[in-house]
Amino acid sequence: MEEAPDEFQVIAELFAPLARGFPGALGLKDDAALLPEAPGTDLVLTADAMVAGVHFLPDDPPDLVARKLLRVNLSDLAAKGARPVAALLTAAFPLGTTLDWLRRFAAGLGEDLERYGLPLIGGDTVATPGPLTLSLTALGRVPAGGALLRGAARVGDTIWVSGTIGDGTLGLEAARGGLAGMDPSDIAWLASRYRLPEPRVTVGPQLAGLAHAAMDVSDGLVQDLGHICRASGIGAVVEAARVPLSPAARAALAAGRSQLASLLTGGDDYELLFTAPPDAAAALAGLTAAGVALTAIGRMVRGTGVEVVGPDGGTLRLARTGWRHFAAPG
Amino acid sequence: MEEAPDEFQVIAELFAPLARGFPGALGLKDDAALLPEAPGTDLVLTADAMVAGVHFLPDDPPDLVARKLLRVNLSDLAAKGARPVAALLTAAFPLGTTLDWLRRFAAGLGEDLERYGLPLIGGDTVATPGPLTLSLTALGRVPAGGALLRGAARVGDTIWVSGTIGDGTLGLEAARGGLAGMDPSDIAWLASRYRLPEPRVTVGPQLAGLAHAAMDVSDGLVQDLGHICRASGIGAVVEAARVPLSPAARAALAAGRSQLASLLTGGDDYELLFTAPPDAAAALAGLTAAGVALTAIGRMVRGTGVEVVGPDGGTLRLARTGWRHFAAPG
Repeated sequence: MEEAPDEFQVIAELFAPLARGFPGALGLKDDAALLPEAPGTDLVLTADAMVAGVHFLPDDPPDLVARKLLRVNLSDLAAKGARPVAALLTAAFPLGTTLDWLRRFAAGLGEDLERYGLPLIGGDTVATPGPLTLSLTALGRVPAGGALLRGAARVGDTIWVSGTIGDGTLGLEAARGGLAGMDPSDIAWLASRYRLPEPRVTVGPQLAGLAHAAMDVSDGLVQDLGHICRASGIGAVVEAARVPLSPAARAALAAGRSQLASLLTGGDDYELLFTAPPDAAAALAGLTAAGVALTAIGRMVRGTGVEVVGPDGGTLRLARTGWRHFAAPG
Repeated sequence: MEEAPDEFQVIAELFAPLARGFPGALGLKDDAALLPEAPGTDLVLTADAMVAGVHFLPDDPPDLVARKLLRVNLSDLAAKGARPVAALLTAAFPLGTTLDWLRRFAAGLGEDLERYGLPLIGGDTVATPGPLTLSLTALGRVPAGGALLRGAARVGDTIWVSGTIGDGTLGLEAARGGLAGMDPSDIAWLASRYRLPEPRVTVGPQLAGLAHAAMDVSDGLVQDLGHICRASGIGAVVEAARVPLSPAARAALAAGRSQLASLLTGGDDYELLFTAPPDAAAALAGLTAAGVALTAIGRMVRGTGVEVVGPDGGTLRLARTGWRHFAAPG
């Protein structure tokens, strides 16, 4: 039987290399990290937790689990218009976690930290008799006062999303084997969208000065837009037919394997959702050319809540608006 | 059966009040928090995780669990010489956690946030099929370049600790009912030391300019001092007879309920451990008058590792040096 990995060895060999190049991380050898403060900027801080069996599948590859954990946090930073600066990881690893598993986890985390240009500067590793439970705190920076907030939407704003909507919830189904019969390449693509979201780190900071309100779509488009409505004190009308869908999602709809309402309320898309005045459309179209499609899907209106207008012009009725983390997982 | 508490309601009613007075927390309604950066200071960041059944007892009162979680992080900040600024909490609550339990948890957290003068500015709450798993990221501030680090000890430095050593490990035993027969008031006092450490937040920042290396004693005095030795590239000699013990710990020793070696290697003390040049002794004695005793227990020497000199003048042999989080809990 393999000996339990030693905490200090794991940190020194697997995680300390992820702090390289950032002196304030103190080589992950101290109890804290240092971040010299920069005048004229605001730090943006976000933290997300993930539990095996709830937020990812227990047998998901460890490198993808680590990368998703980082990416969901980077998605939050991007939605605030922030550039990533550093991350802290706390991990409760199940008893019996092998050194090989940890190596793959750290390798995946390292790959994405390098891809997105930020160091791991601290955290904590503990053992748990329960499922793998991860928490990551990500720090980003915006010019002082420049963060995009939920509550800044105005009546008349156009509502925009990046990328395509609904792939996350379909991807979860695909990863669970629930879309058997569909084109295998569509299934694989959807599963990868679920396992490895693409945080819109390039587009997010470019929205500064163009967008009013912003957040990322993590709990379902309708519910998340509802948060912008509540925080801004106004309402929203979404035209379902304008919501951008991937070819795979269109195929799932055409084959009767999903419904539009499910795609608009499913979680795990990690696309940007933002509002902008109509006269920002041309500038936003310019950003579109940078690689990620931005699509106008509706407008902010007087009133409260989100109305979704279906393809037939009538209001689409939704059984649920999105995902609530705190209730029992469905 | 009570309905599962709603995530948004829990955050709005129980946790958002803990963000009051700090605009950058955005009322815990956004996905991120904002912290305007201050020139001339370094942020100090630390994160600790705690798992029910590993780091606290599953039936510990929820308010004490929350307060301990905050305090162990504040202890890390204090050991760096930092004043607390803000905290982010991620919590994986077991399915079936009641609103009453959550209320008591939030009340305890709120009580100590107020006591130590920092707001909750963000985080995440999720459900878990496993044990309660908590992670807290704490931010503090020091004057730029002024943080106390592990690696700054020098040969000839005096080794100091705050408070008393060994109460944490005795307190765990007391909380488990393992000290039956001892004076009930000693048992209660020790258990409270385990459940509710006193982070040395006042003394820590006052060590700036006086201390060289510092950390907090969380995994056992000898092991933690070993970290300072390794990071500083030198050794340490501790005189066991000088290590300050509480009256309750002395009673436990006298009654044969514990051994000195156990007290020097047990975890959960959350006292400050630091080194300072001999000529700082008078100034440090002045701090002693501020409420927490500071005691010189040894000195830093050429060499490697920690030698503990026993009451008889010989080297004390230790079966283990401290607590390793990552291995299976003992």
